[in-house]
Amino acid sequence: MADRQCLEIRRRVLAVARGEAEGDLLFSGGRVLNVFTGEVEAAEVVVAEGIVAGIGPGYRAKETIELAGDYLLPGLIGGHTHIESSHLGLPQYARAVLPTGTTSVVTDLHELANVGGLSAIRAFLDQAGDLPLDVFLMAPSCVPATQMETSGASLAPGDIAEAMRWPETLGLGELMNFPGVISGDGECLDKADAALVSGKLVDGHAPGLSGPALNAYLVAGPRSDHESTSLEEGRQKLRRGMYLMIREGTSEKNLEELLPLVTDRTYPRCLFVVDDRSCRDLRQDGDMDAVIRKAVRLGLDPVRAVQLATINPATYFRLRERGAVAPGYLANLVVTEDLTDLRPKQVYYRGNLVAENGCAVFSVEAKRVEPIGSSVNVRALPQDAFVIEATSGQGNVIEVVPHQIITRKLKLDVRIRDGRIEADTERDILKAAVVERHRGTGNIGLGLVRGFGLKQGAIGGTFAHDSHNIVVVGANDRDMRRAVEELERLGGGLVVVEGGRILASLGLPIAGLMSPEPAEEVAEKLAALDTAAASLGASIPEPFAVLSFLALPVIPELRLSDKGLVDVSAVSLVSVSTP
Amino acid sequence: MADRQCLEIRRRVLAVARGEAEGDLLFSGGRVLNVFTGEVEAAEVVVAEGIVAGIGPGYRAKETIELAGDYLLPGLIGGHTHIESSHLGLPQYARAVLPTGTTSVVTDLHELANVGGLSAIRAFLDQAGDLPLDVFLMAPSCVPATQMETSGASLAPGDIAEAMRWPETLGLGELMNFPGVISGDGECLDKADAALVSGKLVDGHAPGLSGPALNAYLVAGPRSDHESTSLEEGRQKLRRGMYLMIREGTSEKNLEELLPLVTDRTYPRCLFVVDDRSCRDLRQDGDMDAVIRKAVRLGLDPVRAVQLATINPATYFRLRERGAVAPGYLANLVVTEDLTDLRPKQVYYRGNLVAENGCAVFSVEAKRVEPIGSSVNVRALPQDAFVIEATSGQGNVIEVVPHQIITRKLKLDVRIRDGRIEADTERDILKAAVVERHRGTGNIGLGLVRGFGLKQGAIGGTFAHDSHNIVVVGANDRDMRRAVEELERLGGGLVVVEGGRILASLGLPIAGLMSPEPAEEVAEKLAALDTAAASLGASIPEPFAVLSFLALPVIPELRLSDKGLVDVSAVSLVSVSTP
Repeated sequence: MADRQCLEIRRRVLAVARGEAEGDLLFSGGRVLNVFTGEVEAAEVVVAEGIVAGIGPGYRAKETIELAGDYLLPGLIGGHTHIESSHLGLPQYARAVLPTGTTSVVTDLHELANVGGLSAIRAFLDQAGDLPLDVFLMAPSCVPATQMETSGASLAPGDIAEAMRWPETLGLGELMNFPGVISGDGECLDKADAALVSGKLVDGHAPGLSGPALNAYLVAGPRSDHESTSLEEGRQKLRRGMYLMIREGTSEKNLEELLPLVTDRTYPRCLFVVDDRSCRDLRQDGDMDAVIRKAVRLGLDPVRAVQLATINPATYFRLRERGAVAPGYLANLVVTEDLTDLRPKQVYYRGNLVAENGCAVFSVEAKRVEPIGSSVNVRALPQDAFVIEATSGQGNVIEVVPHQIITRKLKLDVRIRDGRIEADTERDILKAAVVERHRGTGNIGLGLVRGFGLKQGAIGGTFAHDSHNIVVVGANDRDMRRAVEELERLGGGLVVVEGGRILASLGLPIAGLMSPEPAEEVAEKLAALDTAAASLGASIPEPFAVLSFLALPVIPELRLSDKGLVDVSAVSLVSVSTP
Repeated sequence: MADRQCLEIRRRVLAVARGEAEGDLLFSGGRVLNVFTGEVEAAEVVVAEGIVAGIGPGYRAKETIELAGDYLLPGLIGGHTHIESSHLGLPQYARAVLPTGTTSVVTDLHELANVGGLSAIRAFLDQAGDLPLDVFLMAPSCVPATQMETSGASLAPGDIAEAMRWPETLGLGELMNFPGVISGDGECLDKADAALVSGKLVDGHAPGLSGPALNAYLVAGPRSDHESTSLEEGRQKLRRGMYLMIREGTSEKNLEELLPLVTDRTYPRCLFVVDDRSCRDLRQDGDMDAVIRKAVRLGLDPVRAVQLATINPATYFRLRERGAVAPGYLANLVVTEDLTDLRPKQVYYRGNLVAENGCAVFSVEAKRVEPIGSSVNVRALPQDAFVIEATSGQGNVIEVVPHQIITRKLKLDVRIRDGRIEADTERDILKAAVVERHRGTGNIGLGLVRGFGLKQGAIGGTFAHDSHNIVVVGANDRDMRRAVEELERLGGGLVVVEGGRILASLGLPIAGLMSPEPAEEVAEKLAALDTAAASLGASIPEPFAVLSFLALPVIPELRLSDKGLVDVSAVSLVSVSTP
């Protein structure tokens, strides 16, 4: 406060605002989207010290941007984004999203937390300081998600309380353990309380909840939800006081269904989020801008669509200097020619041009040492690592369901040789293994899976919700072993193997989840991985996405963790070979 | 957090919410005003431990309130109220406003701060703990308002920073020194910063500001304004990002003018406030309920009118558990038969009935010792205390303007006897004195005033913006002296004197501003004071209101402070007798 330099800077901004001093940047001849009144105003905007100092005629600045009728919008705010799903490290993620107009992102880093805990989150956030992107944290609430698998780390209520003291923390991330919350689980309530006593927020995650269960969930503190998939579900949640986060991501698309809920009476309580956006989607389609464009195509007023990605998240998250083009707000700005088809022509971060015509125009330093190291720590695989002894002629088989993350539990005849269960590619029954990779426990869970369609080889990866152990699916043990070895060598990643050869791979050395490479290269490698998997016979369009959910023992019906085959409904381990 | 009892309570609320346990109170058969969606819902509401646990069918409770079609609303929130203007101490203020439906009030205690500083504010707020009213503070930003008078206390940036650490502090109160803010005055900016670095709010006060001056003001941090008096002024402030506080108080009435600004596109950024409400208005008309009724009479949708006094202030002030009837929200509730003419039939505070049919049904303990003592400390008046020596035949005269707080500066021929200026009742030129009453300095400012109309006697009081020294206006020195003596004896108050006799008085022993007596008695005494003043010839309807602004040296044109006669435009002292 008493900082003289700071006072000097503020006085300069005030002088610019008063029209007595020259600003740094003047946006002239444009149309300003006013999120407060829903108007489009012909006005000049002057920026000084990274702040919007004034709006109106008569300002001057060192540099003038001639907008010639283009629109000036506030930078977009992603209110619920799992950055890890892009497989990009933060610097490259910033390079990927800035051209889409996103200048602020609220993330909970749930995946990273499961691998590296609070210290990994801190190291990840520390990178944001150098980047033209504002990164806010909602501290992950459910790490680990379950005791049915081995995670790399856990976050106790004390860790959550510590995270609440960080300046970029806005609250507690999506409270996924809704059964725990509703039943009054002490740890869940303590975590929510850690946020609430700090005056911060709690994000909800309440798929399908309604009636008394929803009421109970709300009593514990969540005030938002991004899991509504039907109109009625969304309406109930709005009515009960949740901010409706309308999700339109890579895997979950709820915009078309939920858009009719956005009316004159409800829009202040609605916002857009992406939840997960793949690297490919970010490049080909965009981020929040893509949601806005689609909403407008579906009939939403363009000004309102922008409000749902600017002032509304800013209001919900209490980001007082963001979400509007207004005096005293950060000069995070988007220029576009067309409001009905929002394509950011220029993006400014605190008054600096950071992206133009779809390309980032800032560089990121290639750090020699990644702040978050590899965390692939696998005990040497024994000879019989993938051997499944047969005790009968039948086995429990996980069936994956295209375009859904649930699986089905099947009981099928299995192929047996020398008393051991083998993959049966003709009937699309493959072997699957989850190899614990954080603590070198040597845990290996084995199972059978149907639906991938591989005729030969194996695919594997270290990105596997929620504990992110190594998951491999293959037609033979040798290629599965080769996949694990390659993933170790890469320090984490995704891989396709056939006949002992690596057909395609993507290294994810940042916690086994993210790559330090640019989005272009990551997207290319992902495409090559899909192509390679298809060449092995993979019959689903995105086998690695499906693979990433195979080890998630909180979603029905049958899953595989490093501890073994998990019957989710029974919350118990079951054997592969059935009596 | 780890509090076992607290956990038990929360688990009980959860059990009630789940429908597995009996609540404390069930509101049955009513219509719930849903501020989130703007709907009116037929629904049951169950309360446990002072919290709304559930909405919907199937709940049960120890006690059922049969609403029989009545409406259930959230408790109203007064977003900008100077409690001192009611002349009621906090307990009696609570008894006066709860029957009107106000269950939360945001106050800045600017008057009290000028008398007693931070410690008086703290003592005042400490009384709230026992009362069924939530009292929030916006710390007074401009104490004293000026150096042209002697206040009882001052608040430095360090005091503001201390107040920011109090749990009930929401931010910095109306930043009245807008010229200082705009010009970059370090102390103003430091005070705003003290709020902002604590993550809190800054309320604005920017009468008439527009263009570059408004931009500059906003750069310093304010995000609301309650001073708009014209449509265009309000529209500009909305556009630039200020929450529009539409004021409808005792002295300032802006609702009718500003209501057209409340549209589908702007209403989330609008709220109702009262600023000042006299004790009489509170009793006869109401508080926030009166503003809602008037807005509805003027054509505003009743549901929206309620939103502007509930969820909207809650959103602006970030009061997460208030402003809605919803699970997890405090059971601060209002029952009314008619939405189009809101008359609170019952008012509940945290699930307890606190008012019914216009009457408070809770009692307040009469404390033997007021937490804030009298602060009338006047040095013995010298014999010639009120003598004004004449140096010419003319004098500078303050002319009060009915229904406005500005005054005019007149130069008039004055009546002189024995070389001294005397009151001239035939031409309505009275003598006025401001006697410093905080520090016993002996400061007395003398002047002449026109517009009160007294033919004899004197009126005086200790409630006088902003420093609240003693102000007396009279037809003769003897009665003026008698008035000062009586105000001393009362420990502060208002008084009417004639011929040495006290015709009417009201003691305001709480800082010389407020009475510990109930609203009924205070209102009666106020009426008696007006009647007594009228009997002396007072020609204006509310002479004490006018008197209370006579000593405010920040509003043009001519004022009287304890330091003397102040030419406000020139920011300098002038003599009464002119050369």
